[in-house]
Formats: sequence, C-alpha cells, structure tokens
Amino acid sequence: MSIYTRITSYVCVLYLSYRLRLYVSQMLSTMGPKVSAMALFFPETQVTAKELFETNPDVLTAHNPDSQLCQLLSVLKSCTKSLDVCMYCLSYEPFLHVMEELSRDSNIVVRVVTNGDKGRHTSGSTTGEEKFPSKRLIQLFKKGVQLKVISMADEALMHNKFAIIDNSLLINGSLNWTENSIFNSYNDCLITTDPRLVFAYSQQFNEFWSLD
Amino acid sequence: MSIYTRITSYVCVLYLSYRLRLYVSQMLSTMGPKVSAMALFFPETQVTAKELFETNPDVLTAHNPDSQLCQLLSVLKSCTKSLDVCMYCLSYEPFLHVMEELSRDSNIVVRVVTNGDKGRHTSGSTTGEEKFPSKRLIQLFKKGVQLKVISMADEALMHNKFAIIDNSLLINGSLNWTENSIFNSYNDCLITTDPRLVFAYSQQFNEFWSLD
Repeated sequence: MSIYTRITSYVCVLYLSYRLRLYVSQMLSTMGPKVSAMALFFPETQVTAKELFETNPDVLTAHNPDSQLCQLLSVLKSCTKSLDVCMYCLSYEPFLHVMEELSRDSNIVVRVVTNGDKGRHTSGSTTGEEKFPSKRLIQLFKKGVQLKVISMADEALMHNKFAIIDNSLLINGSLNWTENSIFNSYNDCLITTDPRLVFAYSQQFNEFWSLD
Repeated sequence: MSIYTRITSYVCVLYLSYRLRLYVSQMLSTMGPKVSAMALFFPETQVTAKELFETNPDVLTAHNPDSQLCQLLSVLKSCTKSLDVCMYCLSYEPFLHVMEELSRDSNIVVRVVTNGDKGRHTSGSTTGEEKFPSKRLIQLFKKGVQLKVISMADEALMHNKFAIIDNSLLINGSLNWTENSIFNSYNDCLITTDPRLVFAYSQQFNEFWSLD
C-alpha cells in the first residue's frame, strides 16, 4: 500500500467518523428536549404578554417567543411521555392550560404534588386563588391530571417548586407557578438535562407519590 | 520500522495519553469543588444534629458528615475566593457562621443580596428572627460580609434562593437558609458546576449587585 493510498484511507475514515458523530448528535438532539441547560429569571417585564394571556392562554407562544414565560412553557410543551410537577403554589392559568392540554393526550401522564396546608396559603398576602386544592386544580384532576395533596403539620410546608419532563429534563428554582411569581417578584428557574440531577429529583417525586 | 516496533510504539502512545488524561482529570478534580452535581432534599431528620449545632455551630461536620445540612455546609466551606449569596430568608446560624468564617479570610469576598421587605417577613407565621436586615446580618456586615438589601414594591419579593461559590459552583432550589426550611419543610437544593448555569446566575447576581 503506497503512502498516498494510506493517507487517502485515513482521511476517508476521519471524514466518515466525523459524519457519523454529526448524525448521532443530530439524532440525539431531535430525540430529546431541545435544551440541555438554561436559566430563566423573573419578573417577566413584558406585561403585554400577560394581557394577551388573559384573552387566550396559548397566544403568547406566537407573539413573544423570547419571553421568559414563553420559553418555560415551550419546555413544558416539549413533553411527550410524562410530566411530574411538585409545586408549592400552582395557580397561573397558562401552566394549568399546558398541563390540561398534555393530559388530553392519553399517552402523556401528568402527575401533580402540591401543598395542602390551606391555612398557610390563605395567610399573609397570598390571594384566595392560591388555596389548594383549588377548584381549577380539581377540574384538572377530573380531566385526567393525577393529583396528590401533601398536608404536613402546622408550620411545615411542601415548599418544593420543581418539575420533571419525560424523566429526562428537570426544572427547579424559586419560582412558584403563580401570576405574582412570574410578573411581580424576583425568581429564578433552572432547567437541566443532567441525568444525575434528573434521577435524584425523580426519586424524590416518586417518594412523595408513594406517601400514604 | 518493523510491525512489532510499530505496534509497541502505538501501545506506548495509547498508554501515555491514558496516563496524561488521568493526571489532568485528577488535577482538575483537586483544583475545583469536589462535587459536579448533587441534589439534597429536606427536611433534615437528624434532629440530634440540630441540637449539636445549638451548642457549637461547627460540630455537625465532625459528627454527621452524611447529613444533608452537613453536605451543603461542606460545599460552602469549599469556597476559596468568592461567595455570592442571593437569599430571600437567611437566618440559620450554621450558614451565618460559615459566611463569617469565610469572610475572616481577607482573600475571600462574601456578598449577600437579601429581601428587604420587612412587612412580608413579619406577616404570616414567619418568626421575628427572619426580619431583614436582622441584627445578626448587620453584625456580619460589620465583620466584612458585603450586604445588599433589595426592597421592592408591596407584594413583590426578592424571592431567589441561590448561591455561587468561586464563580464555578451554583446552589439553587426552594431552600431558604432558615432553621424551619431545613428541619420542618419539604425543600430541594440543587448543586451544579455546569458553567452555562453558573454564568447565567452570576450575571443575575451582578445585576442585583449593581442596582441602585
């Protein structure tokens, strides 16, 4: 084998392995969620978006795709198999709307763990809409969203605010899924596909789910 | 060059590159924080640990190294350059103790952003100790911890609960650094060295820090 043939075959092998890696990475990127790590910070300043939502919960995606809220909702909408939500306060309609839409697809299992200490939700300055389980949440339950209300002793809260999509993407942070948290307070929301973190949070969710 | 010489040199190169990678990864692991991803879940059930802390804030590390609180404090203690804390409620002594210890070392810059809406901290069932800036926090400030209190309009909170260590490790989640959050409520705490997330949160911290 001459030196030229050898070099040519090396180049061919290199090129083919490059194409193969490209193909595999493209395959993976289309299979899984589009995001592997993202941080969103609130309050959302695009108040127009908030007003748009009041007329049509779905309109925001089309109008303000770059808004923090839209990005978060888009990640939720990428769900294809399961959505596990563990949320202290969960009352903002766009989130409930997405959960309702997802659970309409019989292949997607939507499970919600929320805090059941009504006393705490009505104290202070939180509004009545944040009482759990709210009428709206019970409505979702009747439509197929699985619901678990965790009641702890006085002063003790199910204070988590995380969600797991398709057992492969984790959302956590300080953000409750309420209108006030999105538009009025400083909050952070972290999104990651790190399998170690997704696994740990999934375990925690399943522990909550198996509680009597 | 015979085929045997060639094979021997290939094997040597492979072995040397393996040793080099091993050396570099060991170097990196000793240079940076020991953890790259971790999830901690509360409430901490080791009440003994809580009692030990009351007599000596440092004793827990020695006695219960596997407890959730210890692991979190150990990560904080790994700080060598800077600790940026952005915390809605920050009153539990072991955390303040670590911050105080770190800032004693003049090479470590400890900066704290906290919520200044006193009204909210005294409403509901939160205790007086969670008022900000608390006497204890002012004491830390006098000892070198840099402090920024963010006051927002009524109903609006600086609700974040995150910290950045040495600009290379991020802690976030639902956990406030209070005794009640650690021992009585369900909370999650995520630790990651993902540079994309660390960078995004650092930017957010610096935005808070540059606010008038």
